[in-house]
Parts: sequence; structure tokens; C-alpha cells
Amino acid sequence: MIKVGIIGSTGYAGQELVRILLQHKEAEILMFGSQSYKDKKYYEAYRNMFKLVDNVCSDGSVEELAKEVDVIFTATPNGYCSSIINEDILSRTKVIDLSADFRIKDIDNYKEWYGIEHRSFSYVNEAVYGLPEINRELIKTARLIANPGCYPTCSILTLAPLLKENIIDKDSVIIDAKSGTSGAGRGAKVDNLYCEVNESMKAYGVGTHRHIPEIEQELAKAAGIPMYINFTPHLVPMNRGILVTAYASLNKAMTEEEVRDIYEAYYKNENFVRILPKGIFPETRWVEGSNYLDINIKIDPRTNKVIMIGAIDNLVKGAAGQAVQNMNIMFGLEENAGLNLIPLFP
Amino acid sequence: MIKVGIIGSTGYAGQELVRILLQHKEAEILMFGSQSYKDKKYYEAYRNMFKLVDNVCSDGSVEELAKEVDVIFTATPNGYCSSIINEDILSRTKVIDLSADFRIKDIDNYKEWYGIEHRSFSYVNEAVYGLPEINRELIKTARLIANPGCYPTCSILTLAPLLKENIIDKDSVIIDAKSGTSGAGRGAKVDNLYCEVNESMKAYGVGTHRHIPEIEQELAKAAGIPMYINFTPHLVPMNRGILVTAYASLNKAMTEEEVRDIYEAYYKNENFVRILPKGIFPETRWVEGSNYLDINIKIDPRTNKVIMIGAIDNLVKGAAGQAVQNMNIMFGLEENAGLNLIPLFP
Amino acid sequence: MIKVGIIGSTGYAGQELVRILLQHKEAEILMFGSQSYKDKKYYEAYRNMFKLVDNVCSDGSVEELAKEVDVIFTATPNGYCSSIINEDILSRTKVIDLSADFRIKDIDNYKEWYGIEHRSFSYVNEAVYGLPEINRELIKTARLIANPGCYPTCSILTLAPLLKENIIDKDSVIIDAKSGTSGAGRGAKVDNLYCEVNESMKAYGVGTHRHIPEIEQELAKAAGIPMYINFTPHLVPMNRGILVTAYASLNKAMTEEEVRDIYEAYYKNENFVRILPKGIFPETRWVEGSNYLDINIKIDPRTNKVIMIGAIDNLVKGAAGQAVQNMNIMFGLEENAGLNLIPLFP
Amino acid sequence: MIKVGIIGSTGYAGQELVRILLQHKEAEILMFGSQSYKDKKYYEAYRNMFKLVDNVCSDGSVEELAKEVDVIFTATPNGYCSSIINEDILSRTKVIDLSADFRIKDIDNYKEWYGIEHRSFSYVNEAVYGLPEINRELIKTARLIANPGCYPTCSILTLAPLLKENIIDKDSVIIDAKSGTSGAGRGAKVDNLYCEVNESMKAYGVGTHRHIPEIEQELAKAAGIPMYINFTPHLVPMNRGILVTAYASLNKAMTEEEVRDIYEAYYKNENFVRILPKGIFPETRWVEGSNYLDINIKIDPRTNKVIMIGAIDNLVKGAAGQAVQNMNIMFGLEENAGLNLIPLFP
Repeated sequence: MIKVGIIGSTGYAGQELVRILLQHKEAEILMFGSQSYKDKKYYEAYRNMFKLVDNVCSDGSVEELAKEVDVIFTATPNGYCSSIINEDILSRTKVIDLSADFRIKDIDNYKEWYGIEHRSFSYVNEAVYGLPEINRELIKTARLIANPGCYPTCSILTLAPLLKENIIDKDSVIIDAKSGTSGAGRGAKVDNLYCEVNESMKAYGVGTHRHIPEIEQELAKAAGIPMYINFTPHLVPMNRGILVTAYASLNKAMTEEEVRDIYEAYYKNENFVRILPKGIFPETRWVEGSNYLDINIKIDPRTNKVIMIGAIDNLVKGAAGQAVQNMNIMFGLEENAGLNLIPLFP
Repeated sequence: MIKVGIIGSTGYAGQELVRILLQHKEAEILMFGSQSYKDKKYYEAYRNMFKLVDNVCSDGSVEELAKEVDVIFTATPNGYCSSIINEDILSRTKVIDLSADFRIKDIDNYKEWYGIEHRSFSYVNEAVYGLPEINRELIKTARLIANPGCYPTCSILTLAPLLKENIIDKDSVIIDAKSGTSGAGRGAKVDNLYCEVNESMKAYGVGTHRHIPEIEQELAKAAGIPMYINFTPHLVPMNRGILVTAYASLNKAMTEEEVRDIYEAYYKNENFVRILPKGIFPETRWVEGSNYLDINIKIDPRTNKVIMIGAIDNLVKGAAGQAVQNMNIMFGLEENAGLNLIPLFP
Repeated sequence: MIKVGIIGSTGYAGQELVRILLQHKEAEILMFGSQSYKDKKYYEAYRNMFKLVDNVCSDGSVEELAKEVDVIFTATPNGYCSSIINEDILSRTKVIDLSADFRIKDIDNYKEWYGIEHRSFSYVNEAVYGLPEINRELIKTARLIANPGCYPTCSILTLAPLLKENIIDKDSVIIDAKSGTSGAGRGAKVDNLYCEVNESMKAYGVGTHRHIPEIEQELAKAAGIPMYINFTPHLVPMNRGILVTAYASLNKAMTEEEVRDIYEAYYKNENFVRILPKGIFPETRWVEGSNYLDINIKIDPRTNKVIMIGAIDNLVKGAAGQAVQNMNIMFGLEENAGLNLIPLFP
Repeated sequence: MIKVGIIGSTGYAGQELVRILLQHKEAEILMFGSQSYKDKKYYEAYRNMFKLVDNVCSDGSVEELAKEVDVIFTATPNGYCSSIINEDILSRTKVIDLSADFRIKDIDNYKEWYGIEHRSFSYVNEAVYGLPEINRELIKTARLIANPGCYPTCSILTLAPLLKENIIDKDSVIIDAKSGTSGAGRGAKVDNLYCEVNESMKAYGVGTHRHIPEIEQELAKAAGIPMYINFTPHLVPMNRGILVTAYASLNKAMTEEEVRDIYEAYYKNENFVRILPKGIFPETRWVEGSNYLDINIKIDPRTNKVIMIGAIDNLVKGAAGQAVQNMNIMFGLEENAGLNLIPLFP
């Protein structure tokens, strides 16, 4: 039984970790970390957990926690994990960080986009970018996982096969992404009030969203050369779900079948990636609550472009589900242990 | 392994049965019945099931099905199950009917409220009303289960303890119920279009809803005398969930603690009923996707009334989850087998 | 041209006042009061007003404002208006207060329910409860209007005719009310975040909501004797709208036509009350954005109860629209000036 | 007073025409055309209109109608208007067609995208594409207006200035559009049920949407050369609103100020186009219920692209509002007569 501590268990991603791990036969949560609900029952933060979790939230020292658990998930604001990580902790426990602290390998890039001085940059190189479909082997032996962002997970996996196979023009990539509102977190902000989000659609962070360098870094690995992309996120009046609609120019004329074959081959052994049948495009409702990524593509011969569409649940494959997938790999479990979550509809 | 056939597997309740049974370790769905999707892959009706269900929908004879499966779920329009049931079928297989056909024990009552001539009334008496918290012993040996309606499940379990203990005035009961839109089914009707339901709230079936005789029949059993209630359902712009707000006059002054103690005692061995702590009232979001019923009450000393509030997921405890709970009991499994569903939030 | 100042113009009710007054041919807003947006352009708070309102928000003295305008609307938190009102102000300008400060005539009642010491109780008796359908004559000459709450407006007008005509048992009244989320205001609270409200339904303030004494006070006037009611508000995942479903026992058997005739007679000269045809019940979507109150009733002969249903837009007839209706009456304008707002659907 | 007949008055666009024209001081609706509600009161289709419209819907001959009214609006399925138009009708009355029948000037293009044989192609050349900001002069004297589609209105006006000024690469244009569900009409289809649309986001008509040739035709006029674009529409769980996020490569490096100046100049005399201040991007909530188009742009120097964002209410500027704007121009009224609609929020 893997002993788990969650720092930041009362944010949306933290709660989703709790939901998934409660259903995981080989993991047990020992510590529900929270500053805002310290010394309160966990179910006071999330009443769905009444009678399911009787634990009290705590805000104790990471050092002590590292002695007691096999893995720590940090579902905390950017800057937290990098401020506490050290050799002592990593020698005792594994760490899966759901924040951005260890995702960006270039320190200048990190500083530029996040505006935070990194406090443990020496561990950035050790940290493995936890996208199992791409980095599975490295994850197996990692001590520290940089769990990918929600937009990057969906964007990278939707685009990587065609970049890797040099099918599309690397300078032509445009990613138009749409996210449910849980991606904005549980902080009390006017912009995220029901009446402000409901019945509206908007772009935000236009040209400046912090997931841009993360997407570019990983797509560059797939492409083999530096990448600069356009990425525009949008806020959708729904709780969960990310839809990525990506556009690129084809390097040469190809049929839809040829392109879909590339995806099928690339993901043929993957549990959590579903390449949809021709003509059926991803919709976020069909992955809600599950760890699936649905993908399909369309060739537009009139403009010689390929439209690539991917959908995930931002809290599952985009955060907590992927974190558990990483945990499973790190501990030698079946990769889908606790993750056979059937999408909930309607 | 229990072999299952589902007639009407492509309605919302049918699909929820599929979702739950796929996670059930001791059940296997052999037949996905559907008229509208006959000969089509099941995932064409519900694309969340892509790669999870590869079966083709069929519309075969019930007689043949009865030979092959241990239990048939009928998630069909009212009138269907009563038209096909017979001794031959019941001698071969168990039947759990999610329609209203076998719920109403008084044939005149059935005819009056449903406007349908009952075609197998001789089985109405045999059929057990499948509310495990009340009829568990009868369910164990039943061949035919009348699976309760969504509103009745929530209403009856929220009110029964106080009626049974004679705490409330039987003539004073008012039930104001609110339901998500999945309760209206997947039929293509203008009234259920997104733009018609969204951003609105309405009462419907005022004084005439078909769940009235069902609620009255079962509450009368709890009370020991005939019951006539006011029941007003409302449509809420959300997918899932039923909230029941019930009102009744207290027969004598009581404290909230005394009344809550009655509930605690009544449901103390129940897996799926949660009596909430004082001052915390049920909200549908906290039970979504799960088989829970959350209950709490409030005494209003100014008017000597008790307000009883209950919340369920209409598709789970109000339909498919309860049907599986009944199956578990009928087959001697753990009652919560396949039903440890953690509420999905947000 | 009536010169208007709005204190608290950047809350939801304040903004609705702006929307309505901009379309009012005989009123002009001179002052957009706001603490939180002081010295900022009004459209920074509400970008729908870009190019429509070029004014800067101010937070100046009420005394100065009283010299410049003919009427001040206070759409402010409870306790504010009572803290600033005095003879000097009322001698110079009329005041329409959208808060609860001057609604409750019994000072003990106010203290008990609001927990605030009233700082200008001498004006409570002078203040007219601004429900034009009931107090039109008093409003004409009032200096200070206590603009009714949203739930009270809908509840009182839905129930008053039958109480006044002694048709229903005064001890049997139950009001189950449902409100859109704009009623909760624009404050940044976790409970009002999109993901917390969306896809859920809950009761709140059960037995303790501050609109109870207001409803009771006004219904008592209609009934001619003290009233104690059950009132349970619910939060609905929609922006606007209040639906009131009220229940009461009939004092004697009556037909639906007879009861509807009472409503028709009571409201026959009213512009903003629509008694719907038999069998058609109010839905909030049909009044959204307008000053209408829709009403219909149903007799349930099985329980000898009448179900009374009313629907308004909480921000219009439940707040800003009614405030403008009061202004029109106070200044001798056509009562519907600026209020011929057609409900926006879908 | 302009006498108006509306054929197809019970669809969403037809009802929006009714809402707007009821507030128009110089127009009067004589005929509420409808097949599905023939001989029924108009408010039976839209109960918001109870007490506002007492007319009965009719399904009479267009010839007779043409004798009685000054202008006919056809808010009908594609193929209808072209089947009834003739010289006799156009000699008696003006026609504003909200369908696609007269938008596409190339008959082969029409046949290819719409799959309908055009029955009055001789009038296609006469018909003026009713986008006032571009074709105002032609509209003044037109007999027959092809009222633009919702997506085209938003797309064309958002892109035209930069194409006209040759600022962007004509081969690089990508339009990612998002629409509220009212755009799908009031037909009873499973795909448009509340539970199917709610809590989801999807692309549809990928590469095949019928608005593509319309957008290309009009952008080609602005650019002066043929245009081929990528256009991907998405369905958003909200009632109203279109957001267009368009991408293109800059022909040369430019500052945001320079580009915004082009828009400011292009639309400087326009009532209904609002170029937002730097850094504030359009959101559909800020135009809901109004005839406004909000636009802003962002330069991404890293990729040398410009992101152009526009937002409209699909039923107003995208349909009925624009139709009334055309009517005003055709009849020599103030262009904003009846169209000073203030966006409704929240």
C-alpha cells in the first residue's frame, strides 16, 4: 500500500486527487494538507466527502511528512514546491508537483513568464516532465515529477505525432484552446463568480498565458527544433473540460486516413488516448471525469491545413489523473490502477 | 458473474446502468437493447463509451434474452415491461423494471394517473417496490422489482422516518421538488432544448405529476394510514440532481436534535443515506454521480413546522444506482458492490 | 428631466438601475457612486456600458449630492442608508433606498433579524414601503422609499389577494422560493464561484432568511392580522429570476376560476402584473429583463390546497425596475416610463 | 409608420425581430407568420409576449402580404425565400431575407455548399448583402436584402479592415468561432437538448460549415483578391453570443497602436462597432441583447501574428438587429432607430 501525502488538498486539483486515490486499491492518503482548512474536517471543504473522509486537514512540516509517506503530491500555487524541495526530502519520498515549478527547463524562460525567482533550480534538470505517453521510461525512475499543465497536456499530445513525423510546418502552429472554469481554481475572485462566467465566452491571457513556454518546450522536443506557437486560451461556462483546436499547414498533401494512421500508430499502446473514428470530433462531455484524451483530425484541402482537435478533463488527465498515472508508473503498478474512470454523462 | 441484459440501454437511465455495471466486478452486460440504435455500436449513442463498450445494440426477443441472462433491466417507457412480462420469463430470469409499470398496487389508481390499461396486472402484487432501505427483506427473494421513481425515492426516504414515528401531521405534508433536466429523458422535444431550459426555473405537472400516487402509496405504508400530499416538481437548469424540500407540521414541539436522532437511528445501518451535521443542508452537487441520499432537517419553532431536505442524483439513487443496489441484494452480493461511487465535484 | 444620483452604482442592482435609467427619457444620471471603482470609468466595472456611459465613478459626500439631484438611489449594503439619512437631505432630495434599512417597521424585529443597530429609526415610520401595486397613493407623496426586497416583492404580490379576501388559512402559508445567483451580489465569495453554483441546487438561510419579517409584515397588512410563514429560499444555477411557489389551505372549497377571478380583479389596472391563462404557469425566462410579475394558481382538490406561483426578474421588478417605478410615481410621470422592457428570450 | 410582415416569426430570429420591432417607434408588425403556430396566439409560442402581442399567427399568401406591408422579413429555412420571390412582390414591398438564399453570388458555390437548386437566381445579383458598415450606400436603394449570417457578420467585420489595408497575409487567415446555442434554432433535435449541450464544448461542421463561402466572398471583396480561409465553429453552452478569434500573419511588423488605429479609422462613424481599449478583449456577455460588435486585437511579436477578436449577439447584430438596421437604412430612418438596446448583464 503506497502511503500518500497531499499538500494543497483543498483546491480543485487536490480534491480530485482525493477522489481518485480513494478509489485506488493500492494507495492510502495519510495526510490531507491545507492551510485554509487547517484543523478542520476535510469534508468541511468538500461535503461530497462526508462519511468518505473523516480526516482533519493539517499544515505540518514537509520534513516530517517526508518521513511518513512514500509520495507527496503538491497541488499548490507556483513557487511553493520549489521553496521546500531538497535532498533530504527527495531521499526519503517521491514528489509529484502539480504546479509549474519544475516544468520549465530554461531558468530565464521561467523567470520571464512566471516572474518568480526559482529557489531550487538545481532540481529542475532532475525533474521529469510527467507526460507518460512521451516520457514513460524516465518517469519510472524519477524522484521528482513536474506534472504537466492542463492546456499543455492536451496541446502537446494532440500535436506531437505530426510534429515528430514532420508532417506539419513548425512555424504555422496555432492553438485555440477552451477551458472549463475549474481551471481557474477555487480562489474567491469577482471574475470567477457564477454571474460573471455564466452566459459568456471570452479569450484571456491573449499572447501572454504561462502555458506557452511549456507547450513550446515540449513541442520543440517532438519537432527536434525550437518552436514558437500562437496559443489563445478561452474561458467556457462549464465546470470541467479542455478542448484544443489546433491548426497547422501540411508540409505535403496527405489524406485524412494517412494522417489518422500516424496517430493510431503513435498511440497504439496507450490506454488513455482514444483516436476517434473519421468524422467524429472530440467533445469535452465524452471525457468528463475520466483520464481519457480524445483526438481527431480533419484535412482541409482548400487551404492545405490540418485541424487537430483534442479533449480532456482538465482536472483528470490535465491534473490529478495524470499525477496518479505518474505515481503508478513510478511505483511499478499497473499504469491504469485506480484510473479506469468511466466518463460521467450527462 | 451475473449475466445482465438491458432493454432500453440508450436512454439516460439505461446509459447510467451501463456506466455503473462496467465498474461492477460481478456483473457483465451481455445485451445492450435499443430500438433507436439497433445494429449500431453502443458508442454511437454515447461516445463516452468508445473503447469501453464495443457491443452492437440489439432489439431481439425478450424470450430469448431471458434464456441467456440472469437479470433483465428494463429502462423503457411506461407500458413496455407490463406488456412483455410473463411466467415463462420470470421463471428463467429476474426482472428489474425502471419504469412505473409495477409500482402502483391499486389498478384504478394506475389507470387514472397513467392513462394506460395494465397488461399484466396479476404481477403487480408479486412485484416488490425496490427501495432497499425500506423493503430489503422482500427484495432478497423477489423475481420482479418495481424500481422506484426518482422523485419518490428522494421524497419517501426523506419523509418516512417522521411519518413512521408519528412525529408529523399526516395531512400537512407538502413536497416541493426540484430536478435536473436528465429526468426529462433524451427525447427530442422543444421544451427540453438547451435554450428553453437554460436560465430559467419553472414548476410543471402542478397537482398532476404521476409520481404523486407512488409517493402517497409508500408514505401511507410508513404512516400506517392513507396519505394525501401536495407534490410540486420543478425543472432546474442542471443535468443531474433532485432536491426535495418537504414541509410538515409537528405533532408536538421537538428539538432539532430529537428529530435528527430519529433519522440517525432509522438509517444507522445504511450505506447510502447520509444524515448531515446540524446546520448543513443537502445540495445536489455533493451527491452527483453517487448513490448517496443526503438528508437534513430544520425545526421552525415560529410556525411549529419541520423542514425536511433531501438530495440525490436522479440517475443513480433515483434510477440506475438503486436498480443495481436491488440486483446486489437479489443475488446475495454485498449491497454496495459496484456502488462505491464517489460524488464528482465540481 | 429628473436629475439622479446612484450611491452603490457598481453592484448588480446599481448597474441595473443604470441600464434602465439610460433608456428613461425623463431621467438623467448625474452621479455614479462607487467606493470600489472610485475615480475609475464606470465602464471599467461593467464593460457593456463602454461608449454608453463615459462618467467616472465618485465617492463624494451625500450632502453635496443632495443639493444637485432630485432623487438619490441607494443600492448599498444594509446599514448604509440609515447612517446617512437626515432632515437636511430629505428636505432637498427624494431618497429611494434599495437596502432593507427602512423596510421593517418594528425596531426590535429589525435588530433581531439584521443584527444591526438602526441609526435613524425616526425615519422608519415616514418611509413608505415601495410596492406600487399596494401602496401607490402613499408613494406619490413620499420623500423616502423603502424599496422592497426581491423575494418579498414576488411573495407578497403572489399571496396578498387571497389573504386580503380571506380565501386562505393564514396559519398554513408556506413559501418555497428559488432565486438566480445575481441575488447574491457581486462580492467575491467562494460560495458564489461559478463551479460552486453551477450544476447544483440548494436551500439556504433555512428558517433564518432576513426577508421573512418583511414578508410577514406586509402579508399581515393584507390579512389584517399577524402572520407567521415558512419561507425557504433556494439558489438556482441561473443569472436572473425568482420563482415563488406558495402553498396554503383554502378556507372553503373554490374553483380555479373563482380564485383566478380574484387575482384578475385585484390586478386589473396593473401594468406589470400578468395573470396567466389557466394551466400556464410562470417561468422565470418569460420575465427576464422586464418589470413583469407573472402569476398563476392551481387548486388541488385532493388536499384542499391552493398552489400560488409567481415569477419576476429579481434585478428588475425585484430591485431596480421597481425603484424606477417608484420614482415615476413620486415625480408624477407615467408609471411605466422607461419600463416598457420586453423580456429577453432566450 | 412602416408596416411590417414577418414570415417565420416563431423561430428564435423571428422572435428577436418581434422583440426589437415592438420597441421601434416607426414600425408596426401587421403579420406574424408561422406554419407551426398557425391560428394560435403568438404568445403561445413565446410567453414573454403575453399581454404584449395579442395577434394570431397566420400562414397566408405572400402575394397578399406584399400588398399590405412595406417590408417583409423572411426568417425562414434556406430555400424558402428564393422559392417565393418574384417581380410582383418586389414591386410592391421590400424584402429582407434572413436566410442564406441571396447571400452567395456564385450559383455553383451556392449549389455546392447548400445542396439546394436555387429557384430565383436572377435576383441574386440584385440582392444587396446587408452589412451596413460595408454596403450602406447600396442598402439605401435596395429592394431585396440578403441579411448576413451570424458567423459571417462577426468574422467579416473583425477581419475586413486589415485585409482592405493589406496588413495581413491573405493565405494565413484562420477563424476559430464560438457560438451560443440559439444559433442552432428551435427545432427539436437530440443534439440540442439541454443535457447534450450543457457542460460541454465541441467543434462542429469542421471544414464544411456553410458560412465558409459567405465569409470568403465578402473578405475577398475587402482584400481585392480571392480568399480561402479556415473556419471552425464551436458550440458553447450559453444561449446567445458569438466570439470570433481570428489569426493571421502580419505582412510587416507593426505595433498594436498602429493596427488599432486602422480599426478606429475604419469604424469611426459607426454606431454599433466598439473598438475596445488596449488590453481589454471582447466577451459575449458585454454585448448580449444589443446590436454592438466589440473588437480588439493583439500583436504577438514572437510569431509575427495578429490575433483579432470580435463579439456579437448572434440574434441581434448577427440576425434580427442587423435586419432592422437594414430596414432603417432602406426607409431613410435614423440607422439606430429602435436599436439603442443596452446590453443586458448579468
